Amino acid sequence: MTAAGYDGVMRLALERGFYFPSCGPYGDAPAGFWEYGPNGTAFKNRFLALWRRELVRRGGMMEIDGSQIMSRSVFEASGHLASFADPVVKCGACGSTFRADRLVAEKAGVAIPEAAEPAAFDAAVAEHGIACAKCGGALGGARRFNMMFGVGIGPEGERAYLRPETCQSIFVDFPRLYKTMRGKLPMAVAQVGKSFRNEISPRQSLLRLREFYQAEIEVFCNPARLDEAEGFPEVEGVKLRLQGGEERAGPVTAGEAAESGAVPGRLVAYYMALLALFYEKAGIDAERSRFRRLGEKEKAFYAEAAFDFEVETSAGWLELVACNYRSGHDLAGHAAGSGEKFEVDDGGEKVLPHVFEISMGIDRSLYAILEHSLREDAENDRTVLALRPYLAPVQVGVLSLVKKDGLKERADRIHRSLRGDFDAFLDHSGAIGRRYRRLDEIGAPYAVTVDHRTAQDGTVTLRSRDTMGQRRVAEEDLPDALRGGLRIP
Amino acid sequence: MTAAGYDGVMRLALERGFYFPSCGPYGDAPAGFWEYGPNGTAFKNRFLALWRRELVRRGGMMEIDGSQIMSRSVFEASGHLASFADPVVKCGACGSTFRADRLVAEKAGVAIPEAAEPAAFDAAVAEHGIACAKCGGALGGARRFNMMFGVGIGPEGERAYLRPETCQSIFVDFPRLYKTMRGKLPMAVAQVGKSFRNEISPRQSLLRLREFYQAEIEVFCNPARLDEAEGFPEVEGVKLRLQGGEERAGPVTAGEAAESGAVPGRLVAYYMALLALFYEKAGIDAERSRFRRLGEKEKAFYAEAAFDFEVETSAGWLELVACNYRSGHDLAGHAAGSGEKFEVDDGGEKVLPHVFEISMGIDRSLYAILEHSLREDAENDRTVLALRPYLAPVQVGVLSLVKKDGLKERADRIHRSLRGDFDAFLDHSGAIGRRYRRLDEIGAPYAVTVDHRTAQDGTVTLRSRDTMGQRRVAEEDLPDALRGGLRIP
Repeated sequence: MTAAGYDGVMRLALERGFYFPSCGPYGDAPAGFWEYGPNGTAFKNRFLALWRRELVRRGGMMEIDGSQIMSRSVFEASGHLASFADPVVKCGACGSTFRADRLVAEKAGVAIPEAAEPAAFDAAVAEHGIACAKCGGALGGARRFNMMFGVGIGPEGERAYLRPETCQSIFVDFPRLYKTMRGKLPMAVAQVGKSFRNEISPRQSLLRLREFYQAEIEVFCNPARLDEAEGFPEVEGVKLRLQGGEERAGPVTAGEAAESGAVPGRLVAYYMALLALFYEKAGIDAERSRFRRLGEKEKAFYAEAAFDFEVETSAGWLELVACNYRSGHDLAGHAAGSGEKFEVDDGGEKVLPHVFEISMGIDRSLYAILEHSLREDAENDRTVLALRPYLAPVQVGVLSLVKKDGLKERADRIHRSLRGDFDAFLDHSGAIGRRYRRLDEIGAPYAVTVDHRTAQDGTVTLRSRDTMGQRRVAEEDLPDALRGGLRIP
Repeated sequence: MTAAGYDGVMRLALERGFYFPSCGPYGDAPAGFWEYGPNGTAFKNRFLALWRRELVRRGGMMEIDGSQIMSRSVFEASGHLASFADPVVKCGACGSTFRADRLVAEKAGVAIPEAAEPAAFDAAVAEHGIACAKCGGALGGARRFNMMFGVGIGPEGERAYLRPETCQSIFVDFPRLYKTMRGKLPMAVAQVGKSFRNEISPRQSLLRLREFYQAEIEVFCNPARLDEAEGFPEVEGVKLRLQGGEERAGPVTAGEAAESGAVPGRLVAYYMALLALFYEKAGIDAERSRFRRLGEKEKAFYAEAAFDFEVETSAGWLELVACNYRSGHDLAGHAAGSGEKFEVDDGGEKVLPHVFEISMGIDRSLYAILEHSLREDAENDRTVLALRPYLAPVQVGVLSLVKKDGLKERADRIHRSLRGDFDAFLDHSGAIGRRYRRLDEIGAPYAVTVDHRTAQDGTVTLRSRDTMGQRRVAEEDLPDALRGGLRIP
């Protein structure tokens, strides 16, 4: 048994209730839809609580929760209707569909940008004699496939769409939020929720889903005042590990990055630093993370600067977050599309705010944390999910050494008293060593064991997952002892 | 200005960032889609945290988080494809569509069950000469309109559906959860998330949405052991306010209800009691709540017993939760549809578990709490949202009496130190009385004011929303003072 890498995480996910495919028992379960089981849900909830603390509250943001279904004109204005599309080719023989850019790259080593005209792919297919990757049949002409899921509203089926990103509601709501919440620039608005993309080839469980969790932050700012960031002194020493090309990331600090112009101003450096601190607290090994600056060809045409926050995993460098300085693109588009005014007053000046966006993939982030936390402890014959204690789905196991002599009832009582404030798991059955190992494997940082001494002196054993050390704690001191160990630093 | 009732809540919602229509600036914004603003989102998050504490953890439940898009066969097996449909009629002249059962009831006082055949509505329309309610035009024939939103998956557009209720993933995942989580009966599984229903006439903001939040709990149980509920002694004195017909609800206890057979067993009574306690803690006036038993005609054919938890509001008695003892209907359906085994071993006996379901509407619950909490305090010339302190979106306001003499900087520092652990709102501008009133209106239970004495002795004023009383607290004692006041009892 190996705990490491993608396969180890997948085994843990399937066998220990972290995540598993949706609609499991049914033959027509569509690909790219997964569910979080009990341990995955608790882990995700704690991750989001940390996100609220370290980014939303610390960064002085508002959080909103908008509709997932939005109207057609929103996506006309955002450009998604026209251009949120992948090039595809379909086999005339077996009916399989492929991403055209990937197929020509794999089969003929030809790099054609995904935004190219369909004719460019047709030419490559003809020139290199590319056939269906599944059956060898002849391929039809390339076309663009829009990745939004359409839905029909009401009895007339008025066309609307499942949002392909959470940010559009933040943009559309900006004038109302600015007004009713007495906003002033810079103003940051965050949202976490589901987004939907009709991917051609969903794959690798949480890494490419059709229905997925995003957390997006939009910082609305005055482009003339990008060097003003109130909390900057707190974070200017934080290492950003910026990387330009292919070289290993260097530990540039937020202060140096803003000073040198490597990032567009202190305001952007401030939020990038908060993001780096957040992921470190979430259990990502900082040495295996980087902000990779996107080249001119990679980034969107409107983005003045773009950085992907990436993490090294067994599946390669994985993009967890896209950071984009999007200029006035979004608000200008919605102003034109809706006729509403998106300009605001900033110290007497009329400004159409620019947007710095931090777009986080939650599912991938959870995957990366699991992979960075899972390890084989061969010496002690155990698998340990060394999650930060405050992110663990089960915070404390409550065990009775044996069921008899009233130990079971005492453990039941302790479990009942703890479960209001802690995620506590009660376990009476099996050898005590095996029960500890099961708790280690799902990352429970503590275990409380009721034994014969408990009846005599009112103390229980408190075992630590990481050190495997045990100490006696009086039953009434348990809540404080646990709270101390679970505190976010 | 009146604070009371639906209009008062709506004004608060729109003007103070609780909730507002989605896609606001656009003319094609579809009806029935709303967003939570910053105060609404924080309030909802706290409500869900309370739900996790008082129902999920206290009731020993697992929580999962499943896909919103599910495959066609899931809804074939559940019966939604065939029968989750409303009867509609459409005007041939203006094209307006109406719920047929509501139209014949309103226009001719004829009560036809919504599940009746379309011909029954056609006959009533003809007999009573019912015309279009909008333009008086002639109505076309009645038809059944399925309320699920279909989506097409992948390039071939394979048909799938947005779930119309969260519970189906719990049913479908039951065998896996039972196995991997070492389940035993009774086993309760909870889920909170979005559901989608293509309503003909969405209305009254959060009260009838097309996209809405549900929290559903499915208790899987052995029908032969419905009287066994471990935690029952803790709750047997809880008043359920059961009501059979139209009479006012009587304060029957959970113990009496189980004893008399008014509810099917202690297990069901146990969860109904937890639910009643939860809503009381959430700020619903228990005297204006009831469990209403549904009659034979109202409840689903498979439900052996059904109770709606209802709350009295200005919009009438509002159903917040549907409690249904659903027998083996759901698991039998998915066993037949998928070919998978849904029977489990319960103490040596093979059992197809029965299901007791608690299906909660989150948006309506939030509305009802707002309405029960909002009041006009004419004597003090203020509007107060008297939310339970632990549910308030803003927990503490931090104010400087004046901006000069270093008071602003000191308030800024206090705000920074508090916002890691509390939702703190910083406010420097305007008369202090007006600032207090703004905090009262959004339900902030505490306000901290920095004044000239702060510089001398390090104390601040701590003001209580409810009593308007003020006391001096040392700056370093603030976190403990706030924590004490915000604790869930």
